[in-house]
Formats: sequence, C-alpha cells, structure tokens
Amino acid sequence: MEKLIKEINSRLLEIVDNYQDSVVKEAIKYSLMAGGKRIRPIMMLQVINSYGIDYHDYLDAACAIEMIHTYSLIHDDLPGMDNDDLRRGKPTCHRQFDEATAILAGDGLLNEAVNVILKACYSNDLKISLLQILYQASGINGMILGQVLDMEFENKKANHQELDLIHHHKTGDLISAAMKMGALVCDYKDMLIWQEIGYKIGLAFQIQDDILDVTGNSEILGKKVGSDLQNHKSTYVSLMGIDKSQTIVNQYFKEATELLYKLNVKYELILEIMEKLKKRVK
Amino acid sequence: MEKLIKEINSRLLEIVDNYQDSVVKEAIKYSLMAGGKRIRPIMMLQVINSYGIDYHDYLDAACAIEMIHTYSLIHDDLPGMDNDDLRRGKPTCHRQFDEATAILAGDGLLNEAVNVILKACYSNDLKISLLQILYQASGINGMILGQVLDMEFENKKANHQELDLIHHHKTGDLISAAMKMGALVCDYKDMLIWQEIGYKIGLAFQIQDDILDVTGNSEILGKKVGSDLQNHKSTYVSLMGIDKSQTIVNQYFKEATELLYKLNVKYELILEIMEKLKKRVK
Repeated sequence: MEKLIKEINSRLLEIVDNYQDSVVKEAIKYSLMAGGKRIRPIMMLQVINSYGIDYHDYLDAACAIEMIHTYSLIHDDLPGMDNDDLRRGKPTCHRQFDEATAILAGDGLLNEAVNVILKACYSNDLKISLLQILYQASGINGMILGQVLDMEFENKKANHQELDLIHHHKTGDLISAAMKMGALVCDYKDMLIWQEIGYKIGLAFQIQDDILDVTGNSEILGKKVGSDLQNHKSTYVSLMGIDKSQTIVNQYFKEATELLYKLNVKYELILEIMEKLKKRVK
Repeated sequence: MEKLIKEINSRLLEIVDNYQDSVVKEAIKYSLMAGGKRIRPIMMLQVINSYGIDYHDYLDAACAIEMIHTYSLIHDDLPGMDNDDLRRGKPTCHRQFDEATAILAGDGLLNEAVNVILKACYSNDLKISLLQILYQASGINGMILGQVLDMEFENKKANHQELDLIHHHKTGDLISAAMKMGALVCDYKDMLIWQEIGYKIGLAFQIQDDILDVTGNSEILGKKVGSDLQNHKSTYVSLMGIDKSQTIVNQYFKEATELLYKLNVKYELILEIMEKLKKRVK
C-alpha cells in the first residue's frame, strides 16, 4: 500500500505544479501534501487491482477524489465552520495562510478535480460516468447535505438513525463513490455491492472518529480530542458508550467483509485496507 | 431579452427545487434568485440565437454558468474575503443566513453546476467540451486566479497592465467562456472570435464597475459605493480618471462590435446586449 500512496502523492504534486504560481497554489499544495491517509484514492485503486487490472491509468481519477476530500476539510476547518486550528498535526490552511486564501484553495480544489478527470486519457463516456458518480456523491444531495445535517444537529440531540443519516452522507457518500469508480472501470455489474461495502466502511470509519475523539491521543491524531463532548455534540459514544460503539464498528467491518466474499475478486487487497482501518489510531 | 431572463430564471428554479430540503438549499435559492442581470447565460443563448439555432436545448448549460457566477459572488462577499453586507440591494448570503451556510451554498453551486451539464440531454462529447470550457474559465488558472491577483493587489498599487490582467481573469474568463460555449454548439470555427469579443466586453464591464463605484447611486446599484477609494484599491478611475476610463470602455465596446461584424450571424442580438451594458447604471 505504501507504493500506492507514493504514486498518488507524486501524481497529486504533478497536478498542482501545473497551476500558475500564486498563494492559492501554495495553499492547495500545503493542504494536499499535509500527510493525508489517502484512504479514498487507495480504495478506488485497490478495487481495480482486485480485478487484476492495472490501476496506473486511473491514478488521475483517484487523485480527483482526494482533491474533493481535501477541499471539504479546508472549508470544514474555516472559522465560519468548525474553526479548527490543527489538522494532521499542522496548522489548518486558514491558520497557515489566511481565511481568503483558504476559501479560494477549497474552491480551486473542487473546481480542478473536474479538470483532472476532463484532461485524463479516458474515453468521453468514461469521463462522464466518473464525474457523475463523484459529483453526485460530493454534492448538495451527498457530502454537502451531510455537512448541513451535521450543522443542524449541533444544537439539538440526534438519535441513532439521525446520526447514521449524517454519517451516510458526510463520510459514506465519498468512500462509496471511490469504490464505485473503481468498479466502474472493471465490472459495472458489481457496482452496487461495492457501493454497499463503501457505506459499511464509511459508517464504521465515522464511529471510529467518535471513539477516537474520546480515547485518542491528540499528538497522534494531530488534532485536539474531546471536542465533541465540549461542543455537546451527539455521537455514537454519547448515545451508547465506547464498548457498544466499538461492537458496532466491528459489526460493520464484518458485514463489509461478507459482502466482499460475494465478489469474484482478490479479496485480500481490500481486507488489507479494512485491517488497517480497524486498527487505526488516527 | 426579458423572455430569455424569464426562461433562465424558471429553469434555475426547477434545478434548485430538485435538491433535498435544507437551509443550504434555501440559501442557494435566495442568492440565485436575488435579481442577477443574467448577463452570462444571456450571452451564451444569444450567441446561439444569432446563428438562427433554437437555444432552448441549451438553457441548462447557460444556467450552469450563472450558478458558477453566483457561487463566486457568495464566496467573494464572505467576511474572510470582501466582508460585504449588501448585494443587489439585499443582505448578502452570509448576512441573510450565516457564514457556514454561505460557504456551503457556494460549494454546492460550484459542485451542482457540473451535475446540471452532466444531466442535460446532450451527447457525452458535447458535455465534455462544455465542461472543459466552463471549468477551465472558472478554475485556478482562470476566475480564481483573478480573485487571487485582486487580493494580492489590495495592499499595493497596480498599474494599467496589472489591472487588465486581474480583469481578464476575474471577469473576462467567464464572460468569454459563455460566448465560447454558445459558439461551440453552432460553429466551433468561430469560437476564437467570440472569445475575443467576450474579453473585450469583460474588460469594458469591469472598468464600468470601477466608474460606477465612484459615480453610481448606491440605491440603484444595490451595494455601497466608494469602497474602492476607501480600501485604497487601484482602479482604472484612480489610475486615469473617470473621463479617460469611460473613453476606454467605449473603445472596448467598439472593438467588440468590429469583431462581431467579422461573423456571419444576426449581429443585432449581440449589439442589443452591448447597448444595454453600455448604458448600465447597476
């Protein structure tokens, strides 16, 4: 997986280096290269790998997903949103630069992710399908809706189902899209199963975030812990405690694994990602 | 032109009404329907009209341009950017709602403009070409670069050439893209001439903005005047005075008209837009 991360990082750098020099280019580079785990692009590329297909041609599409993920983090950290100072152990984009630069850096990433796919060496039909999956997932009925719901429940208690709905859109939509984009170029008939796997992993991932906000180490996490409690935010942990939350995380990973076994692919590549996610401490 | 504006408005409303209900949907609707002049979509559709081709099929692409224009205004008005309270005589998006909602509304519009084109009844080849023109123009080497340059020159004097470069990207790129998108569906061989016409009009438009910031009526303009002077911002007016600036505006419109005469189209439709722009007081 390390090789994959290196290839993703090097392609992301190439993409950004093509922009005209400006402070916003620097801010984009700073946030893109701040040590993200690259989970979403890895998922897309390992899905392709699991069919025995060479993933190198699809690095561009995978980078587009990471660009959208990074834009969402930059805007999410802004003073007008979560007002966070630290991300991955480094100053957030608006802290390192300034607010205007961070707003434009986020806008730039969301905009340029389109251009990355448009410029890639894919057929026009494939470009359209990739853009459809990606921008549906990141849009007003997808990831952005997740952000809105998250905001709406900042000052009122969310129940279990409401939390799931927030997680489904805020995290699940983009992770699911990454897996679907991988399946699209291999065997589109499997797309719905991959989508389901993506949602299971997305929900598990988000509950882990809630747990890590209580049990995690702020130095390892690279951001402050305890903020959910401080903000009186409803989380899985506040609703059902750490142990029960961890049981649900395990259950989601188990269900994702069972779905995976329905597919005629090299499971071990995806199981490896899930094992890594299960053990994550950041 | 009134009929065109009505059709654009009604299509924009249809697009937004399809989103899931949320405060961000309301904010998008509020800003989209706040009485914009619809210059960019009108330009695209009148270029198509000028070839004698029915523009109705292209309303979606025209709306996508307006959505990108509106997102740029919402983000531009944010406290972290220009911190404006009024736009078109109404509270800016973050004033009417809140900052987080305005950030997400802008993100939503930029994201959904892609989906509008993807969902339109065009061939995949046409969708790709339209997206290429639009997202190149609005991106990190286009409109966003214009914003960055504008920021960079907030605290230092810009000369004539530097101002032109800012205007070229900040306003010219998107207006030019609108004309190119119209030409693309009619006669792509004319695209470069339309691009040039777009840049001339864009520069004239932006210098008019500088003039109106000094001579305009804040009630008619729907925003406060005198802000450039207050912010010690370099403008055409501060560099060469009102009369000389007006002469340059007229010269750009004249050059745009001369370019127009090179084309085998119904000029009068485009001349009508230019006449309206020449006389604009808001």
